[in-house]
Amino acid sequence: MIKNQIFIVFFIFCFNFGFSQQKPDNVEIDYTQYVNPMIGTSKMGHTFPGATAPFGMVQLSPQTNFETMHNPDGSYNTKTYEYCAGYQYKDSTIIGFAHTNFSGTGHSDLGDFLVMPTVGELVLDPLSTSDGKKGFYSLFSHDKEAASPGYYKVDLDSYGIKAELTASERVGFHQYTFPKSNNAHIILDMVYNVYHHDNKNVWTFIRVENDSTITGYRHTKGWARDRKVFFAAKFSKPFKSYGHKKYDDIKYDGFYRRFKQDENFPEMAGQDLRAYFNFDTQGGEQIKLKFALSSVSSAGAMKNLEAEIPHWDFNQTKEETKAKWNQELSKLEVETLTDADKVTFYTALYHTNLSPIIYEDVDGQYRGLDQNIHTSEEFTNYTIFSLWDTYRALHPLFNITQPERNNDMIRSMLAHHDQSVHHMLPIWSHYANENWCMIGYHATSVIADAMAKHVGNFDMDRALQASINTANVRYFDGLGDYIDYHYVPDDKSHSSVSKTLEYAYNDWCIAQMAKQIGNTQVEQEFMERANYYENVYDSSIGYMRPKLSDGTFRKDFDPMDTHGQGFIEGNAWNYGLYVPQDIDKMVKMMGGKERFNQHLDSLFTMEIEDKYIEKHEDITRDGIIGNYVHGNEPGHHIPYLYNWTGHPEKTQSRVRMIMRSMYGPTVEGLCGNDDAGQMSAWYIFSSLGFYPVTPGSPNYALGSPLVEEAKIHLDNGKVLTVKTKNQSAKNVYVKRVSLNGISIKNNQISHSDILNGGVLLFEMSRKP
Amino acid sequence: MIKNQIFIVFFIFCFNFGFSQQKPDNVEIDYTQYVNPMIGTSKMGHTFPGATAPFGMVQLSPQTNFETMHNPDGSYNTKTYEYCAGYQYKDSTIIGFAHTNFSGTGHSDLGDFLVMPTVGELVLDPLSTSDGKKGFYSLFSHDKEAASPGYYKVDLDSYGIKAELTASERVGFHQYTFPKSNNAHIILDMVYNVYHHDNKNVWTFIRVENDSTITGYRHTKGWARDRKVFFAAKFSKPFKSYGHKKYDDIKYDGFYRRFKQDENFPEMAGQDLRAYFNFDTQGGEQIKLKFALSSVSSAGAMKNLEAEIPHWDFNQTKEETKAKWNQELSKLEVETLTDADKVTFYTALYHTNLSPIIYEDVDGQYRGLDQNIHTSEEFTNYTIFSLWDTYRALHPLFNITQPERNNDMIRSMLAHHDQSVHHMLPIWSHYANENWCMIGYHATSVIADAMAKHVGNFDMDRALQASINTANVRYFDGLGDYIDYHYVPDDKSHSSVSKTLEYAYNDWCIAQMAKQIGNTQVEQEFMERANYYENVYDSSIGYMRPKLSDGTFRKDFDPMDTHGQGFIEGNAWNYGLYVPQDIDKMVKMMGGKERFNQHLDSLFTMEIEDKYIEKHEDITRDGIIGNYVHGNEPGHHIPYLYNWTGHPEKTQSRVRMIMRSMYGPTVEGLCGNDDAGQMSAWYIFSSLGFYPVTPGSPNYALGSPLVEEAKIHLDNGKVLTVKTKNQSAKNVYVKRVSLNGISIKNNQISHSDILNGGVLLFEMSRKP
Repeated sequence: MIKNQIFIVFFIFCFNFGFSQQKPDNVEIDYTQYVNPMIGTSKMGHTFPGATAPFGMVQLSPQTNFETMHNPDGSYNTKTYEYCAGYQYKDSTIIGFAHTNFSGTGHSDLGDFLVMPTVGELVLDPLSTSDGKKGFYSLFSHDKEAASPGYYKVDLDSYGIKAELTASERVGFHQYTFPKSNNAHIILDMVYNVYHHDNKNVWTFIRVENDSTITGYRHTKGWARDRKVFFAAKFSKPFKSYGHKKYDDIKYDGFYRRFKQDENFPEMAGQDLRAYFNFDTQGGEQIKLKFALSSVSSAGAMKNLEAEIPHWDFNQTKEETKAKWNQELSKLEVETLTDADKVTFYTALYHTNLSPIIYEDVDGQYRGLDQNIHTSEEFTNYTIFSLWDTYRALHPLFNITQPERNNDMIRSMLAHHDQSVHHMLPIWSHYANENWCMIGYHATSVIADAMAKHVGNFDMDRALQASINTANVRYFDGLGDYIDYHYVPDDKSHSSVSKTLEYAYNDWCIAQMAKQIGNTQVEQEFMERANYYENVYDSSIGYMRPKLSDGTFRKDFDPMDTHGQGFIEGNAWNYGLYVPQDIDKMVKMMGGKERFNQHLDSLFTMEIEDKYIEKHEDITRDGIIGNYVHGNEPGHHIPYLYNWTGHPEKTQSRVRMIMRSMYGPTVEGLCGNDDAGQMSAWYIFSSLGFYPVTPGSPNYALGSPLVEEAKIHLDNGKVLTVKTKNQSAKNVYVKRVSLNGISIKNNQISHSDILNGGVLLFEMSRKP
Repeated sequence: MIKNQIFIVFFIFCFNFGFSQQKPDNVEIDYTQYVNPMIGTSKMGHTFPGATAPFGMVQLSPQTNFETMHNPDGSYNTKTYEYCAGYQYKDSTIIGFAHTNFSGTGHSDLGDFLVMPTVGELVLDPLSTSDGKKGFYSLFSHDKEAASPGYYKVDLDSYGIKAELTASERVGFHQYTFPKSNNAHIILDMVYNVYHHDNKNVWTFIRVENDSTITGYRHTKGWARDRKVFFAAKFSKPFKSYGHKKYDDIKYDGFYRRFKQDENFPEMAGQDLRAYFNFDTQGGEQIKLKFALSSVSSAGAMKNLEAEIPHWDFNQTKEETKAKWNQELSKLEVETLTDADKVTFYTALYHTNLSPIIYEDVDGQYRGLDQNIHTSEEFTNYTIFSLWDTYRALHPLFNITQPERNNDMIRSMLAHHDQSVHHMLPIWSHYANENWCMIGYHATSVIADAMAKHVGNFDMDRALQASINTANVRYFDGLGDYIDYHYVPDDKSHSSVSKTLEYAYNDWCIAQMAKQIGNTQVEQEFMERANYYENVYDSSIGYMRPKLSDGTFRKDFDPMDTHGQGFIEGNAWNYGLYVPQDIDKMVKMMGGKERFNQHLDSLFTMEIEDKYIEKHEDITRDGIIGNYVHGNEPGHHIPYLYNWTGHPEKTQSRVRMIMRSMYGPTVEGLCGNDDAGQMSAWYIFSSLGFYPVTPGSPNYALGSPLVEEAKIHLDNGKVLTVKTKNQSAKNVYVKRVSLNGISIKNNQISHSDILNGGVLLFEMSRKP
């Protein structure tokens, strides 16, 4: 009882000082109880169960992947894609806890600074020693594992150690309860990485500053070509001794001549090294470790550590972070038909709050794309922009749930542009690197969407100019040809149709920005480019089709094939429906509403042969309905397209079917990569009954809500309540929908409708 | 004539604004005419002929070493030691111009950012291409080469290109005069290094910011284990195209998929890469390149570039730097018996002004030993501390010629201590790295010497504490054993006698500091340690001798052998005379004046067998007189020891003989490594007639001046004039010496004598 009171006092404190000026009336509810971070940790969800604050730079999570990710000799094997987040539920061993993890991404990286507590003989090999003994990994079981927002615990059965983790934005907080031992260790493995190549490390560096403080950094050449992460860490108890092992063969003369470096030598450096810290422990003794990150320097990391967690109270940090999570989760207050749906919903909401991550020190300093140190002026800098995924629904969701952060993210993108030697907005960027993953320049969509919805205070002229610059980097990915030919010629560039379609949509986004700030010339120029999608439509067969530089369509063409047919991660059947900027015109172009309707019906019901999907990591049977792929992004708008064919009832039943079949409150509850929150954002929107089919427009297409009721607590203090009448699992059809009593006839609402608050009432029915 | 007037006007301008408040009356004399940077560039002098400002961070010099330093396959061979400064006079090819070079050191490193202009077919291999064609090196001849302080030029005969170099402190300025070509190139080779191992690069990075500006950095793991250098460079003419070749096999997916990276791709990174920039040139057209360095960031380098050389006037920078050199050289105004002596003298003075180097950006920021960025507050930060060499005469010379810089150097050492995880003062440090080269902790000597001479305004308490900390790092190089046993036991540590002797001297230095600030306890503690040299003297044989931990002297012992006999780079005969802190007591301990005198006589006249020197890079026949080794440091005080045996006349003749035989105005004018200026500083002092036998004491031993007259322009505005009477090559003996008319009887003067100015008159004689 006393504990709860303290918590409530603290909770009120948090809300009064800093988190937000908004004070929803539902702050007393503990929404974290509905979040299960284990959802999506099996198969291809690529989520992690570890501890993190909302959008935290530190995402501290168990790593299970040595078990199946590595060959017996320690080298990487082909299964690494499963381990983008370091954890697979099926595994039975943990090799430690790493401080950075992607959530749900379609590519692997990170896994920095693996920490592992052990007892007994010191072993520094993770899997097995050279003489065949067990490595330092531990067995664990899910029975003795628990995860909730900001907290993770597990028993490390091989050692009788209880491991608990929590985190503030920039500091991971470990609490290890040891058995009695005069041979206890905490290992800091600087070799460990999440990636699909060996030798990812460029350089590693550790300093033992005193008997309980260490600092250092790692430079990696993984997916990010040139990435530096610094750390500063404090142990709650002085170590009795320490040491390291280096895995490269360079002997530095002076060090070698003047010192014995094997033990208690405080300065370690090399390409690959593992350090250890030794302790005597009493039975039940807790050793804690605070481990802060920085992209700037170890001095920056130390600043972060001291600013965010100056104390040793693990529970305090755990509760503070829980409170931060409740602050985020309480923005959407839903009642669902089943408890399971509530868990699915709040876990999805949780997953939309894991990235982009805060990427700056407490003083605003961060390492920029030019590898120089920059300071964010009047905004918080973010990184991890998986934009080909997240522009679709995640950033639009932020415009409702996180307008301030989305503004900061856009300002971060503009800073990225300014630091880019190409003068480009981010494509897929993280930690001062552009990874150039996937196609298009969808930062323009995020900016246009915010502008259309009047979110943020960024410099719109600068944003437009950055977008124009990006759209004119001729040497980027077929863009020069696109500008010259008005489509991307298939004989000059792979994925030519996908690129043409996405560039055209992005150009429409730029035109919307220009329109909004009254720059007619730019608007016209880019509206023209926005129509280039027409140039890859072959009316003779009714599909988007690769076109050659001589103006003819490619002869050899299979609209079902997802390989080498002008599309990336899709085919003409599904990816070919990608004209979000002018759906009416697309429908007309493709033969009119009836024909398009039939195309959609077939898409959802046809059988797709194994040969078309077997080579795709991102298209698996789990995420497929007919030839519609929900487990990957290019088709996320498709279920809503029936609204444009005169059959909104088909959208309604289809989205309910997708929510039911493609999501769930289990470890397999994601049918494909969560993709940095995009998959979850689709679920949130669809659950609420509307979806941003065309980011950059202020409008949302209506679907069929899954919730019974939802209160959307807006940043402006208002509340939009989504209400349903006759809601049930079978009543998926919307008989009537009204906003504040006025019927909606066109199957859409606008962002200002949402901002004005009130009641959006769906009257449900079992029949269309 | 007009040109000269402009120069004089400029010259006056310079002296009025910034260089110094001191205005000697000899500013009109061009002392740079007496400097020949070629001296010491042959064999083991390890000097470089390139362009640098006094103590400049950029030391831009031709690299000839691929010719003999590399095997035909490009790998390094055993001759690299000759190439510590990148240049050997005997070579006939140049492969480019590098921006950092050690001067005279006994170890190799640096060689950053090699630039080479070529015309004709682009070749990116320095030596030879894979199909056996010529690499990008050029033939050159010394006839068409010239070097003077701050300026170097050479004709690159293979291309008909005239190359000229100058430099400010932080910016190298290249001026290349091309023939007519539509195929001219400037190559930036990031692979090239001065070092004795391949794979020195950790990482390299180049950005092409616009059509004439590039930035980037290099991280190396050479002698310095973890060294980062950043650059920013501007070409005077836009390049028509550019590109790079990468020498590692990592393909970064995103880059590879989205771009053609072979040409005009502005973002290059990898372990090893070479970039090129293409131009069309008219006959006689000059392309200039300003290339700035920073230890902080490329942004820092750009700041340095813009602050130091905002214009494109090569001659202006050349003249400014020449003026800076005259400012330094004019501090010692000498008349010599021969023109050759004058060249030797001023070149030696030049060589004492090449390192330590300024190591901070124009805004005071620099990368510290902890790899964090620091800002120098109220001092200029320096690096390259080759202290085992330079504490002997170079830093004592600075206390006369460069008191302000020496103060800054000490403050730099204190900052180093604060950043050191070991809490140690520098041993051999450069560029945020401690290389742990050679023995002792001689920063204590530099500090004690400055304190004894009242030079500087550093915090003396802090300096004492830093020295005490350094002297108590038990895990450093036998120091714990030294503290416990009162000598370094030979069975526990190599070079045990040398270490015992030097630690004892360093401890005496610490005692002097303590004495000066009245800390009696510390003074007594360290005076006790200062006597530990006695513990390795074996009176039964009359030599310093390795002692074992059981207290007995090592049985197997050869006092002539320089290998494994308890000494490093020396033997019991010469290194065993190392007790500068109490020479009288040493003489007495070793059998009294007469016996010691005989020892010295024998030392200078005995024959040393080849077997004792053949394996030593630092002890060569060139630098040997008997068993006295002038080409290396441990014996530099020995010629002056006769002053303590009652035979100062032997010191007088011996030092004149050494100056005559071991120095000269030719490329072979240094008999061993200049050792960052120590060898030259010995010459300067000895030429002036006195030498700091015991740094840390305010006294100088008198010798026999080589000059006819010398005016020492002191920082306090006073002048000490060294005058001679009957000076000649044969009149090496000092009949009488007087200071301001008062005879000196004890063969020494003090630092205050110098500071007070006046006339130090040597009356010379042919006979003792």
